[in-house]
Amino acid sequence: MYTINDCQQIINKSLANLNLPEQPTNLYDPMRYVIALGGKRVRPALVLMGCNLFIDNVGVAVNPAIAVELFHNFTLMHDDIMDHSALRRNKPTVHTKWNENIGILSGDAMLIKAYAFLALCPPEKLVQMLAVFNKMAVEVCEGQQYDMDFESKADVSLEEYIHMIELKTAVLLSASLKIGAISAGASENDAGLLSDFGKNIGIAFQLQDDLLDVYGKLEHFGKQPGNDIVSNKKTFLLLNALKLASGERLNTLRHWIALKDFNRDEKINAIISIFNDLNIKDITQHEINSFYDLGLKSLEKVACPEERKESLVRFAEIMINRQN
Amino acid sequence: MYTINDCQQIINKSLANLNLPEQPTNLYDPMRYVIALGGKRVRPALVLMGCNLFIDNVGVAVNPAIAVELFHNFTLMHDDIMDHSALRRNKPTVHTKWNENIGILSGDAMLIKAYAFLALCPPEKLVQMLAVFNKMAVEVCEGQQYDMDFESKADVSLEEYIHMIELKTAVLLSASLKIGAISAGASENDAGLLSDFGKNIGIAFQLQDDLLDVYGKLEHFGKQPGNDIVSNKKTFLLLNALKLASGERLNTLRHWIALKDFNRDEKINAIISIFNDLNIKDITQHEINSFYDLGLKSLEKVACPEERKESLVRFAEIMINRQN
Repeated sequence: MYTINDCQQIINKSLANLNLPEQPTNLYDPMRYVIALGGKRVRPALVLMGCNLFIDNVGVAVNPAIAVELFHNFTLMHDDIMDHSALRRNKPTVHTKWNENIGILSGDAMLIKAYAFLALCPPEKLVQMLAVFNKMAVEVCEGQQYDMDFESKADVSLEEYIHMIELKTAVLLSASLKIGAISAGASENDAGLLSDFGKNIGIAFQLQDDLLDVYGKLEHFGKQPGNDIVSNKKTFLLLNALKLASGERLNTLRHWIALKDFNRDEKINAIISIFNDLNIKDITQHEINSFYDLGLKSLEKVACPEERKESLVRFAEIMINRQN
Repeated sequence: MYTINDCQQIINKSLANLNLPEQPTNLYDPMRYVIALGGKRVRPALVLMGCNLFIDNVGVAVNPAIAVELFHNFTLMHDDIMDHSALRRNKPTVHTKWNENIGILSGDAMLIKAYAFLALCPPEKLVQMLAVFNKMAVEVCEGQQYDMDFESKADVSLEEYIHMIELKTAVLLSASLKIGAISAGASENDAGLLSDFGKNIGIAFQLQDDLLDVYGKLEHFGKQPGNDIVSNKKTFLLLNALKLASGERLNTLRHWIALKDFNRDEKINAIISIFNDLNIKDITQHEINSFYDLGLKSLEKVACPEERKESLVRFAEIMINRQN
């Protein structure tokens, strides 16, 4: 039985031995750079854990796991350009360190390399793998597009928001587990249940992210809390507040959203105060718990020995209890 | 036997029935837009012609052909951003009509859709298809990176230039034919010979493009000749001139390249005059003919009835005799 930590180590070892070509350096150095930035390797670890539910030899899932991690890194490279993010993990992003063109092109090459690793899976599994991977990949693009669209969309419903984070974040966790299950030769039913577990934990994870931006502690969260509030990001918290507030409180909320010049702390405190009045923290925590419970129920139904589920239960716990 | 025209019609019919999703419109409308811009569908037509050398039923090659065309359109979307091109086929490019983020993301989705169509090929051919496609796709990225690198690289050799256009342009034509051959169940030897034909005709095609920018006629070329000269693009012609010129002529050439403020026609005429003195037109034409002949020799060796090669011979003739 492999722990999350074991899986992360297997992945990091494989990533250290990718042997990308040297030339052209402006294409491959950015790829090496992004991979070396590190990260928790959550998605490829899920591929291995999904596989390990059913069989001991997770080696069969390593190439698909690398494919998933390369895909994730491709999305980071392109998202950072689209979001004009200058830093990732406290280091300059690729388009900042090199330039935007190199960020676009080395991201493209990263996506193609993801497919190259997926193609190394056993031939008899390739059709199924590609179907899951392609569906996931296009959904992640749809999620990113909705996320960008929502910035200028006046009326985003809670349902639309949940659908967006499902596409943008949850389907990749979901597909990672499914790909692991396929690698192990699991039944379609079990692969589907695992996929459902991943989707629901993924949504809970993203809602937790929204919550931490407002109620997280700087020392744990790693980044300054309140960024979403300052930028008027339509998070689960803000959308709920806009839905629940009325009268003077709604006016105050709208006032702060519309205000161009403001003191950062003043705006954060004013909006948190409204969130507190409306009980937004509890509402969000309740929603997180619902998705978490839904996810765990799907995991419970997977037909494998209970002790094999330990790593994934632990994973879900970490996701829901994390402070960063 | 299918003519080039027949193949183009089959492709256009399939492209008209792609049934891309409606939502999110900012992801899928740009894809529909780029596909509707048209074009000669050279690459997917090559897939069908490569298949038709060996079998009558080119239907088996349609999905891989669409994959190739979608891949080509993905490269156009991202290259247009990287090259800051405002127009393509006299219409606004995606990042001009929408914005850069949408150009990046819908390009990404186009690449993923390319893989989705490739995945529809018969399962027993999928491993081989993906190997050819992935190798081609990453090489096209390498070619684009070298092309961008060469803009600021002082000393580009003719060999490096030919290698760049082979990657950026020729490998896609080459892979298109190979994918067609694989669809038809051709032998590895025949697929390799066809691939070689495509590679050499592709290089000849790109050199012809360099030649037409200088010696093409506006009424045929469709765009103002001389753009490469004005922008100091390191084409086969300029690289040859820099290699062959000496003394006063080399000084004059370098003078025009270094000059920031100049009269467009004056610069074009001055550099064409140097090209003429150095016999650059004949040298380039000779190089084109060499690659053309090499390509045709590979096609001759393909083990299929001679009359089946007519469409591809005709294709090569059009490529080499084209005025635009």
